[in-house]
Amino acid sequence: MTENTEHKKHTPRPQTEVKMLKNRLHRMMGQLTGIEKMLDEGRYCGDILIQVSALESALQSLGYLILHDHLETCVREKAKEEDPEVMEEVMMLVKKLK
Amino acid sequence: MTENTEHKKHTPRPQTEVKMLKNRLHRMMGQLTGIEKMLDEGRYCGDILIQVSALESALQSLGYLILHDHLETCVREKAKEEDPEVMEEVMMLVKKLK
Amino acid sequence: MTENTEHKKHTPRPQTEVKMLKNRLHRMMGQLTGIEKMLDEGRYCGDILIQVSALESALQSLGYLILHDHLETCVREKAKEEDPEVMEEVMMLVKKLK
Amino acid sequence: MTENTEHKKHTPRPQTEVKMLKNRLHRMMGQLTGIEKMLDEGRYCGDILIQVSALESALQSLGYLILHDHLETCVREKAKEEDPEVMEEVMMLVKKLK
Repeated sequence: MTENTEHKKHTPRPQTEVKMLKNRLHRMMGQLTGIEKMLDEGRYCGDILIQVSALESALQSLGYLILHDHLETCVREKAKEEDPEVMEEVMMLVKKLK
Repeated sequence: MTENTEHKKHTPRPQTEVKMLKNRLHRMMGQLTGIEKMLDEGRYCGDILIQVSALESALQSLGYLILHDHLETCVREKAKEEDPEVMEEVMMLVKKLK
Repeated sequence: MTENTEHKKHTPRPQTEVKMLKNRLHRMMGQLTGIEKMLDEGRYCGDILIQVSALESALQSLGYLILHDHLETCVREKAKEEDPEVMEEVMMLVKKLK
Repeated sequence: MTENTEHKKHTPRPQTEVKMLKNRLHRMMGQLTGIEKMLDEGRYCGDILIQVSALESALQSLGYLILHDHLETCVREKAKEEDPEVMEEVMMLVKKLK
């Protein structure tokens, strides 16, 4: 798996999906800004932690969406081509994601 | 536990700690922007997922720092005052955080 | 924190709680035996993994019960005695548990 | 996905793998027995929780081994047969496992 052949997605993501993922990223930026504001206001730790946990969930969902898409496109293609390493890569990603 | 008495942290966070936490939040905003750029460039899912997992780890670390501070200040104080609910709240937070 | 002073719980667990925790452990042994049987019968991986995940949840619940009890007894006591290390220990346990 | 066609693994697990997985299950039964003994002896919560976390890690490893095997056999086969649901099932399992 060389950097050169792999760094672009073989089957491009549909524009609607890119847009939806970017909307989620923008919402998460808003959540980070909200946490920063709570720190500036000296808000209660428990309240801040609840926002941190909400952001963790949003990020986990994003990861699952991208992983699902990866499985349905890249992994399916590589499995059909009998790529011997594709499932190792899936396992590496599954272990890394929370 | 009423909103009114609880929404500010009783022992204010030291300014150095607020600054350090805000630096971490700014770095995370940079990571979100980086992920957005990867989506715009049609980058490989596996590479994007590695960045998502790095951000998950950064967020988990932030959560642990705030939880540790919470335990050392608010929870210690409330335990000394024999607040009967403080440990319920800790458990709720521990279960929510990844 | 020396092994000698720490290895017994200072406030003993009530017998009803010990019994409840042991019942949960026995059920988990049953779950492990069930997974072994599924392997012997050559059962479908997906079905086995669902049982593994059920056992993971049961174990996580057990961990939370013991942690909650720990917070309500040992940690409260040590916080009142101003033990400077007790919250470090809580954080270590929280990070280790899934 | 009907119970009848799915409940056996299509490509049987090699005997060496079954044996290795069963050895792990037996070791986990020993770990559960160890935790029970610690409860009977009134051992310190922190020490018990460290053993619970060790068992959680052992169980997570077992789950990963079975998932990896699942990906390399059942999922590869189904991907080649263009089974439309196989990746949904992988995602469901990934979300369930800790």
